[in-house]
Amino acid sequence: MNQNDLIELGHRAKQASYVISAMGTHQKNQLLLAFADALEQHQADILAANQRDLTNSQIEPRFVDRLTLTETRIADMAHGLRSLAELADPIAEIDGGWETESGLRVIKQRVPLGVVGMIYEARPNVTIDAAGLCFKSGNAVILRGGKESLHSNITLANLMRQVLKAHGLDENIIQIIPDPSHELAQQFMELTDSIDVLIPRGSARLIQAVVKNATVPVIETGAGNCHIYVDQAADAQMALDIIINGKVQRPSVCNSIEKVLIHRSVAAQMLPEIVASLRKHGVEVRGDAATQQIVPDVIPANTADWSTEYNALIIAIKVVDSEEQAIQWINQYGTHHSEVIVSDNYQAGTQFQTQVDAACVYVNASSRFTDGFEFGFGAEIGISTQKLHARGPMGLKALTSYKYIINGNGQVRK
Amino acid sequence: MNQNDLIELGHRAKQASYVISAMGTHQKNQLLLAFADALEQHQADILAANQRDLTNSQIEPRFVDRLTLTETRIADMAHGLRSLAELADPIAEIDGGWETESGLRVIKQRVPLGVVGMIYEARPNVTIDAAGLCFKSGNAVILRGGKESLHSNITLANLMRQVLKAHGLDENIIQIIPDPSHELAQQFMELTDSIDVLIPRGSARLIQAVVKNATVPVIETGAGNCHIYVDQAADAQMALDIIINGKVQRPSVCNSIEKVLIHRSVAAQMLPEIVASLRKHGVEVRGDAATQQIVPDVIPANTADWSTEYNALIIAIKVVDSEEQAIQWINQYGTHHSEVIVSDNYQAGTQFQTQVDAACVYVNASSRFTDGFEFGFGAEIGISTQKLHARGPMGLKALTSYKYIINGNGQVRK
Repeated sequence: MNQNDLIELGHRAKQASYVISAMGTHQKNQLLLAFADALEQHQADILAANQRDLTNSQIEPRFVDRLTLTETRIADMAHGLRSLAELADPIAEIDGGWETESGLRVIKQRVPLGVVGMIYEARPNVTIDAAGLCFKSGNAVILRGGKESLHSNITLANLMRQVLKAHGLDENIIQIIPDPSHELAQQFMELTDSIDVLIPRGSARLIQAVVKNATVPVIETGAGNCHIYVDQAADAQMALDIIINGKVQRPSVCNSIEKVLIHRSVAAQMLPEIVASLRKHGVEVRGDAATQQIVPDVIPANTADWSTEYNALIIAIKVVDSEEQAIQWINQYGTHHSEVIVSDNYQAGTQFQTQVDAACVYVNASSRFTDGFEFGFGAEIGISTQKLHARGPMGLKALTSYKYIINGNGQVRK
Repeated sequence: MNQNDLIELGHRAKQASYVISAMGTHQKNQLLLAFADALEQHQADILAANQRDLTNSQIEPRFVDRLTLTETRIADMAHGLRSLAELADPIAEIDGGWETESGLRVIKQRVPLGVVGMIYEARPNVTIDAAGLCFKSGNAVILRGGKESLHSNITLANLMRQVLKAHGLDENIIQIIPDPSHELAQQFMELTDSIDVLIPRGSARLIQAVVKNATVPVIETGAGNCHIYVDQAADAQMALDIIINGKVQRPSVCNSIEKVLIHRSVAAQMLPEIVASLRKHGVEVRGDAATQQIVPDVIPANTADWSTEYNALIIAIKVVDSEEQAIQWINQYGTHHSEVIVSDNYQAGTQFQTQVDAACVYVNASSRFTDGFEFGFGAEIGISTQKLHARGPMGLKALTSYKYIINGNGQVRK
């Protein structure tokens, strides 16, 4: 595939976006169910394609699990598509309307974004998840997955395209870039004429590369250096439970906890048990000087620790003198994702929620709840860590824009 | 100023953003009034600085008018600030809230974006407009104006900074880059640690340069290749009035009309009068082959015309065979800004508004109404032509994001 082919692919996506944007909810839902059926009917083809990816000699061992498809994982993808069919359709919702001084009637109506570009890494299920979410929200999608899962991705995308074709619809509503070269990825990120938004999903390195190199607008997702601040008015057991849940329940994800800040007045009392419990769960505990004084055998934390997202069973602890210091620290070193205070003091909780600059600011609950499903959105395309367009968990509505429908009777501007 | 100075300036803005984000509406309004008073009190200083800019020997003649400040223009800026003080404050509004299955209470609350970077060209009034809008919406701002208006811009920004200081507030809520070098502009567009959004205002060239070179999220504004489609069911007089208003009332702005598409069945009847009237208003009329057949002396339009935003008293006319062709043409050549159909047919109007992909889609009214003030927003930071974050006229709300405030009582994720 060369650059001209890619430009053509972009134009086809733009044309197809007008087809899907005008499709009614019932038809979209029927097709989502048909996609799910096709996955199950062609399970053998999917597993065979996945086997080709897995037998690729260049694959790194750490990718094997996330790359592997099984009958269960195919069933999960089909279930995801059927769940999407049950969700409310945000398209054509009216967000508001008014009459202007000149007598124009203005209606603000929700419309699809148009063409969504997805750039992702090894997991082939993203092909189905992302295509399903874009489809339900009325968008055409161009998929560009990792080279490790190329055969799996192409097979999955083609199954959906065949369903579209069989229903007499433009199969280019869903397209996949079959060539994983870097040059083409760069050109993809510059298709401003065809793509309305790029959503990268994967490692911090991938996301930063897209943010840096794209000229198409990007929604930045997924970086999570999340903190729990244990206030002097914290319930000790609750603090412990929330720390353990935030760190160990699923350490590889962006809403897990990476840092504990604890008020000096309760540090000596609470830290020994917190550290012991973390270790019992297999967590490597690092700490600042004050933490080392209380629990002498913690590993000294260095400067880089405070801004590092471990995504692993590692945590760093810092003792602070005040809530103000904790808030400043979080605003400086955090990634504006999810931040937690454990406190029974009304004023402390309110101040934390007002002053901490993050998508989700919790009092007395685990950061692990930052999730489209837990929030009740019924779906999730990612968790935005930027403030533009969408912040925090993004459901179907984050894949929409709006237009103003304006009706007059001959008005001209004076 | 070097790159390190700029990084420091960015950090100061980020710190100041926490001060302004926590400021109450009453105090913000008092300061907007104080800014206005300061402009009037220091009118002589402003005019003197402006005179320095105007006597710069390198200035191009076409910049002189937009660069020139007068007593009236200073009064207009002060009036703009006082109007902002009267507008509702979007900050801290609650957009929604619910309880999740796990019993968390989630509140979606409107917050400032944080730090807004403004990149603009010759008009010094943008310094005051942009700073006022950012201030009212709780954002810190970093201003980077054109080199032509450097002295005017610095004087205007410093007046506001002095007011902040005199009130015991962080003057870095409003900062200006005093060095108009290109290197520094590029570094400014890459300050992802400090700046939450960049808004370019000015020529298409400036905006495209920012879109291409920025790594900070950008809101693209202002490109307007707007069309009027005259349907076969159009009222001839209404079509004429809307065409003339769209083209001649203020040809230099982005919501003016650049193209007329007219249905073949009414072209022969309507075009002679439309062309004659346009010419009477001093408009140069270009046309496709069919238009040339009807009005032989129109200038032949070439391929480049159809995608050109003239911003001048030039218009190009094309005859189309159907509404479908008009819609396809607009979606291909338009800039998704403002598009108009003139028709008394219900079906034609509905189809146009549904299928045209633009921020504002009008039936029987002039595209010139696409404007924050005309829409009743009371202010305007620009007109977005992208679909992400904000689309169409952007008022104060477009300068905000939201956060989720989440209250629990010890919930952890299962």
